[in-house]
Amino acid sequence: MISRSTKICIIGLGLLGGSYAKGLYQAGYHVRGIDIDPEAISFAKRMHWIEEGGDDVSLVKDCDIVISALYPKTFISWIKENKGLLKKGAILTDVAGIKREVIEEINKELDSEVEFIACHPMAGREFKGIQYADCSLFEQANFLIVPTQENSQKAIGVAEDIAKILKFKHISCLSAEEHDVMIGFLSQLTHVIAVSLMNVNDNSHLAEYTGDSFRDLTRIAKINEELWPELFLLNQDNLVNEIDAFTQELQSFKSLLESGDIEGMKQKLITSTNRRKAFDKGR
Amino acid sequence: MISRSTKICIIGLGLLGGSYAKGLYQAGYHVRGIDIDPEAISFAKRMHWIEEGGDDVSLVKDCDIVISALYPKTFISWIKENKGLLKKGAILTDVAGIKREVIEEINKELDSEVEFIACHPMAGREFKGIQYADCSLFEQANFLIVPTQENSQKAIGVAEDIAKILKFKHISCLSAEEHDVMIGFLSQLTHVIAVSLMNVNDNSHLAEYTGDSFRDLTRIAKINEELWPELFLLNQDNLVNEIDAFTQELQSFKSLLESGDIEGMKQKLITSTNRRKAFDKGR
Repeated sequence: MISRSTKICIIGLGLLGGSYAKGLYQAGYHVRGIDIDPEAISFAKRMHWIEEGGDDVSLVKDCDIVISALYPKTFISWIKENKGLLKKGAILTDVAGIKREVIEEINKELDSEVEFIACHPMAGREFKGIQYADCSLFEQANFLIVPTQENSQKAIGVAEDIAKILKFKHISCLSAEEHDVMIGFLSQLTHVIAVSLMNVNDNSHLAEYTGDSFRDLTRIAKINEELWPELFLLNQDNLVNEIDAFTQELQSFKSLLESGDIEGMKQKLITSTNRRKAFDKGR
Repeated sequence: MISRSTKICIIGLGLLGGSYAKGLYQAGYHVRGIDIDPEAISFAKRMHWIEEGGDDVSLVKDCDIVISALYPKTFISWIKENKGLLKKGAILTDVAGIKREVIEEINKELDSEVEFIACHPMAGREFKGIQYADCSLFEQANFLIVPTQENSQKAIGVAEDIAKILKFKHISCLSAEEHDVMIGFLSQLTHVIAVSLMNVNDNSHLAEYTGDSFRDLTRIAKINEELWPELFLLNQDNLVNEIDAFTQELQSFKSLLESGDIEGMKQKLITSTNRRKAFDKGR
């Protein structure tokens, strides 16, 4: 459904928006970019990832596909202010890491002539900014499409096309509720754990002593402090539940340890080993 | 202090014992092996990692350096039963992942004619058995020497020689108390977290949706269920403290989330980012 003549506009040329622009450009598509940062625009132009770009929101006017790569709250504000500029029949999509509130707020703003199809490309890096853009990130990554009951097959097809053009490894569809529960566990809880593990101990000589485990568990403790608190709060209910469930599991391990229950700990380790093996096979 | 004529005996040819044998053999040293498993012995002989070997404990008799690569409790029992076979002037060392109890129990058994120098090579894999032995593991790993006040410079020198021959990246000395606190945090707490994260959710379709975070945080959830509960229990006091401190940190994050404190969460993320950057530089 996306063709070489489709006009695509990316709003927000950060790490993800930049990687989208690069991937679409490399596949031969026409891309425009909107960003308030002139350096991001000139970088994208210098790399030829966008043909036109600037901070002028009216660049969006005649575009068939509009991709927001803004932070969720900024995306919602942007649409509130600029929805009137979107072309009739345009498809709007996004990259936000949480979905319920984004879908609700955006659909509240749009009239029936622009369709929003929510997407979550599960790829990122520990850095921010277009200078770290890298569309090879997508080749090992999952692409989630989060349609509502109102979405058309056409819009879902556009989302699939984007994922295929950008060479995502696996495309799934799920509901906003399922998405936010799952992401609360797989992504948000894991980041909260990594941050807490890094923060609980200030021994600065750790690197001399550590094996791989601590290194692996804290890699994602280097984290974008502007984006993530916003994502956490937009999924507050699910993330609180996940922290509670995890804490309970940790306490149940501690009880076995305190009572010297070797057999009980062994069973926990057998379960985790089997699950991790199954997880490896599922990849 | 170790020369080409030094007779070295490794007790226990599993993953670590096998990797020691391989590394020492490749560096041109004479190695014997003792193991109750005839297949481990024949594997090590076939690879030429050991010159002699079997289940006969008297193989240890004329050896200058004896390296236990047994699990901690098995090591203690082995010494209780076979200490009389050790040569006068021999140096005994080990690879156990916890130190206070091992050092106390072993030194209780030995008379003044055999000296024990405790070591902890911080290297491992998610597999067990000599068939996974790989001495290249050591090149990125830390080697910890854990002397008591009674240890001689000679014995510490022997431990350093072993680490150098096996090409460990970094050698440190620390007390048994320091060691067990540090390992309770860096290694044991991280494994308990990974196991608990894997066990808290039985959604078997996770692999379709996950990004790198969950994968990284659960890699070590594939774990040797015979060894680790023993290690955890031998460091019960420290590990309980670490689980408590981590739980408290996690709860403090949850409080910020529940009260919608974006700024408080942001500060936690800035701290963790800075610490992880410092950690990267320290490597």
